[in-house]
Amino acid sequence: MSKLAHGPKGFKSGAIALGIRKCNRFDYALIYSDCPATAAGTFTQNKMKASCVKVSQECVERGKLQAILINSGNANACTGQQGETDTRTLIQSLSEELNIPEQLVTMSSTGVIGSPLPVEKMKGSIPSLVESLSPESHMLAARAIMTTDTFPKTEHIGFQLDGIDVSIQAIAKGSGMIHPNMATMLCFIMTDVHISHSIANRILRQVVNETFNMISVDGDCSTNDMVLLLANGMAQNSIIQEESDPRVAVFEKHLYQVCEKLGREIARDGEGATKLLEFFVEGAKNTDEAKRIARGISLSPLVKTAMFGNEANWGRIACAIGNSDATIDENHLSIWLNQTPVFIQGKPTDYDEKLVTDSLKNNEIFIRVSIGIGNGQAKAWGCDLSPEYVRINGAYKS
Amino acid sequence: MSKLAHGPKGFKSGAIALGIRKCNRFDYALIYSDCPATAAGTFTQNKMKASCVKVSQECVERGKLQAILINSGNANACTGQQGETDTRTLIQSLSEELNIPEQLVTMSSTGVIGSPLPVEKMKGSIPSLVESLSPESHMLAARAIMTTDTFPKTEHIGFQLDGIDVSIQAIAKGSGMIHPNMATMLCFIMTDVHISHSIANRILRQVVNETFNMISVDGDCSTNDMVLLLANGMAQNSIIQEESDPRVAVFEKHLYQVCEKLGREIARDGEGATKLLEFFVEGAKNTDEAKRIARGISLSPLVKTAMFGNEANWGRIACAIGNSDATIDENHLSIWLNQTPVFIQGKPTDYDEKLVTDSLKNNEIFIRVSIGIGNGQAKAWGCDLSPEYVRINGAYKS
Repeated sequence: MSKLAHGPKGFKSGAIALGIRKCNRFDYALIYSDCPATAAGTFTQNKMKASCVKVSQECVERGKLQAILINSGNANACTGQQGETDTRTLIQSLSEELNIPEQLVTMSSTGVIGSPLPVEKMKGSIPSLVESLSPESHMLAARAIMTTDTFPKTEHIGFQLDGIDVSIQAIAKGSGMIHPNMATMLCFIMTDVHISHSIANRILRQVVNETFNMISVDGDCSTNDMVLLLANGMAQNSIIQEESDPRVAVFEKHLYQVCEKLGREIARDGEGATKLLEFFVEGAKNTDEAKRIARGISLSPLVKTAMFGNEANWGRIACAIGNSDATIDENHLSIWLNQTPVFIQGKPTDYDEKLVTDSLKNNEIFIRVSIGIGNGQAKAWGCDLSPEYVRINGAYKS
Repeated sequence: MSKLAHGPKGFKSGAIALGIRKCNRFDYALIYSDCPATAAGTFTQNKMKASCVKVSQECVERGKLQAILINSGNANACTGQQGETDTRTLIQSLSEELNIPEQLVTMSSTGVIGSPLPVEKMKGSIPSLVESLSPESHMLAARAIMTTDTFPKTEHIGFQLDGIDVSIQAIAKGSGMIHPNMATMLCFIMTDVHISHSIANRILRQVVNETFNMISVDGDCSTNDMVLLLANGMAQNSIIQEESDPRVAVFEKHLYQVCEKLGREIARDGEGATKLLEFFVEGAKNTDEAKRIARGISLSPLVKTAMFGNEANWGRIACAIGNSDATIDENHLSIWLNQTPVFIQGKPTDYDEKLVTDSLKNNEIFIRVSIGIGNGQAKAWGCDLSPEYVRINGAYKS
């Protein structure tokens, strides 16, 4: 049996190829739970929020969701009043077709900013989209939400809570305009765990902060980022509703695994990327400073191009560290490239440049930094910067 | 007569080709004033400061300078105690050769981070460097401080203060790792104006904040940035030492012109750049917010790649504005691309896409943004992002 056939109980996905922007590709998707699910979410901090972000925030505040309509190819952002009306129209149509309250339905869009949605075509296709729903179609939905992603991103994990089988299934997309901030690209997480709204929300925020909020492709936080978690309780465990419940840590650990995996996949599949970069910062003054240093390095175009070119140019890493808004003492700073120490306690080492250069040809690069002044540590993920990134983004609209 | 022959009185430059990193190019320069000059400066905010930055900061605090030794090809940053010793050794040698106090000499380096300076070769060539000094050699010095710059950057302006002829001559370099923050790349400004240390420092800071600190090539603030202003008073005007002196505004205006011109040239000659981007933000809550918005747009790799590809993808500009840490109301936001309104008061316009796309093929692009909520305005400059940027930086050390 495929991994995906074991998805969380009571969840179905559907997808069709509508031709919202390009023909012959899945671009219209639906996620549905057989019963209303507890909803948690984190959203973009960009001030130019797409209307679907605003609607989804309202749903998460109410705490319940049953269906998510998703399209790629058009972000429906910066589209004024018309954009909001279109979102509401589609949500209303879907709630009628599914025969569930409008308040339990939300929408998510990704793609070009500033163009109106082909709303009539989208409305007319809602019946076929609903018809495509199946518990085996999560992979199809993952494919339909892709923009310049080169592969669909899904993760599924099964585990037990007090002897009861539960599972988490998530789909995500990334690629460009990726620099989540208390929010992220698109990710939809389904679980059959029975859990309260406040605990689910707290755990999701925590996990997103350590995973999706620590990836960067190009430093641009999009107008449409969102992570939604739907927990429908159909595993029939007794509800998790106290922070002191030992199952909180078990659920959080597994949710972290799912989100870390998808976050890494998004960084690996950054627009034009040829390799995944993992940054580990230790010895910072505190966790927050460690995070800022790690993200600062992951953002530097000079570090990213050096990694693309297999150049052991660690001076650019030192420069990016020095630019971070964190406490640094050059004399305690050390840097390792793929396990090789290149700068220790403020002094360049006499490393074997060929050895390091060869190791940079791997498709996963590990950069370790020790600040040497405290106990703060953090991980971040990014990707290299290639000419292909420019090619993709110099001809995106056309 | 050439423009450069009219340089400020009492200043000479010299340059030689030493082969610090690459052969057959000028890479070692010297700026010299016939008498000790009032010295002002702004420096990188990067915490990994090169030793030459620390030494120059000390000189500016003392307020007097007479000679600046400059090399390209090697930044002498992240080189530990050895780096500091090398800087001191070269300063001492030069002061002996010029027969002036060591306290009046400083050094500036630019190039690869983390490699030791070829100090013996540099020391041995000081006599030839001093011999090359001439009032007509500022252009040669501008050439010697280049790294990946494709053309030398100099500016000269002559004007009168109370009927006395004075002038300002400046040389600068930029290219990569350009995102000055209360500091900048390298720029050396010579003037024969007689002005006090405190007024010169205040004016320089102000002007740098509006010019060099508003350019960005790639968002990386380097370890070696500095702007030094030497005012030797040889124009023999009575000293400018009160803020209320009307000549303060005259001097500031001309210094602004010089720095704006050089800042634009640095942005235009950003690594791999094919065009200069000028951003004008108006109607922001205040000047500070206008600056943050303008810089935010100039930094966005997605805006930069769209401009490279002649794509009227203004949605990315809106997205970058929304990401800025400033007050934004989508319904009051308007955007113009090369004079064409593309988004007015929160709504996309029905603009002629071909007309706009054609205008983006120019080598200077003008992006105007109205926030529509206040009186803050600011200008910023940047450049597009091309595959050539990646090529240059993926093979810089090798």
